Amino acid sequence: MDLYFSPLACSLATRIAFYEAGQEANYLEVDPKTKVVQNDGSDFRQVNLLGLVPTLRTDDGEVLTENAAILQYVADCFPEARLGTSSGMDRSRLHQWLCFIGTELHKGLFVPLLDRKAPQEAKTYTLEKGLSRLDYLENYLKGREFLLDHFTVADAYLVTVINWTMATPPVELAKWPAVKAYYERLRSRPSIARAIAEEFELYKAEIARHKAAA
Amino acid sequence: MDLYFSPLACSLATRIAFYEAGQEANYLEVDPKTKVVQNDGSDFRQVNLLGLVPTLRTDDGEVLTENAAILQYVADCFPEARLGTSSGMDRSRLHQWLCFIGTELHKGLFVPLLDRKAPQEAKTYTLEKGLSRLDYLENYLKGREFLLDHFTVADAYLVTVINWTMATPPVELAKWPAVKAYYERLRSRPSIARAIAEEFELYKAEIARHKAAA
Repeated sequence: MDLYFSPLACSLATRIAFYEAGQEANYLEVDPKTKVVQNDGSDFRQVNLLGLVPTLRTDDGEVLTENAAILQYVADCFPEARLGTSSGMDRSRLHQWLCFIGTELHKGLFVPLLDRKAPQEAKTYTLEKGLSRLDYLENYLKGREFLLDHFTVADAYLVTVINWTMATPPVELAKWPAVKAYYERLRSRPSIARAIAEEFELYKAEIARHKAAA
Repeated sequence: MDLYFSPLACSLATRIAFYEAGQEANYLEVDPKTKVVQNDGSDFRQVNLLGLVPTLRTDDGEVLTENAAILQYVADCFPEARLGTSSGMDRSRLHQWLCFIGTELHKGLFVPLLDRKAPQEAKTYTLEKGLSRLDYLENYLKGREFLLDHFTVADAYLVTVINWTMATPPVELAKWPAVKAYYERLRSRPSIARAIAEEFELYKAEIARHKAAA
């Protein structure tokens, strides 16, 4: 499978899922500014018109987009890794958390905060509405190891999103100790430590490339 | 099942799903400002801390939140209505569309536009980023009747979101003729026509209630 990703973007969650499952994938790096695929210089917009990562090309050649869809697809491909859930209410809870992370945290809170072009008024508005979502998460994570009863792709997604707080100073993780403890615990998990370390190197190279081109 | 909803909010999609399936539910109206349940005067935040609709209480008493999770749960409850899909790539496409509508359209584009308290800078920023999503949808819907090969809960969600353009003048639906035609076609579907008509009456009552309280 081909995974189009940008360093430390939400596509990191799918890399974590592959590492958790002990499976190989072909990682294709997309520059978030130019949308050029670094591996071959091609235009990523030819693959995904919106230029959004992650994008997955399956072994059957199907192009799948949207993080929640890709994460569940990868979980379904490798059932022995137990990255998903069984059917019924367990699966509904997985849907619930993937949706909460994607809408309330990722899109609702972090996208405007991470965007350097976003005006200050947009950031202030975002913070006013969004921080209650971290309170909610804090309350839920108290006394829990994972979002569900075992590690799932929802945890891979959540740790990816919390990892962005290193670049969003108004969100001080120390204010949510259960979230912070969850993040630090998961960050030391081998699949996640490896994925973040590898993508952090690529992220630094991306920043250097943008500086050189400026 | 109990469905907590607010008139014409994204919870409308679940009402449409119940009507499509020809199934009964207990509809509990939440005032979006006060979070008071209109049926009995109780505080909705006791049910859902974040005060967000839709929230579903299943027949087993489980409280499920997040639109994508609730819609898929209802689809799974009534398989004969074919509101979901079979497993495999069809289900991945359903996940993809539910995620796209929830993150790119609902949260990314419409939430800031619909919020009267959002500063103008936040709205302008949202429009700059968000309208390309409607271009993408326009391109996809050309020559298609539904998002997948039959009516699913993703269509129930999409028609609910497009319906908000009546309250977001900067988004002129006429600019996206395939989206407009899709919306008008689905709006004339009996389940959708009935759900929108009923909730529009409740919406007008909500506005009148807010004016009287001001």
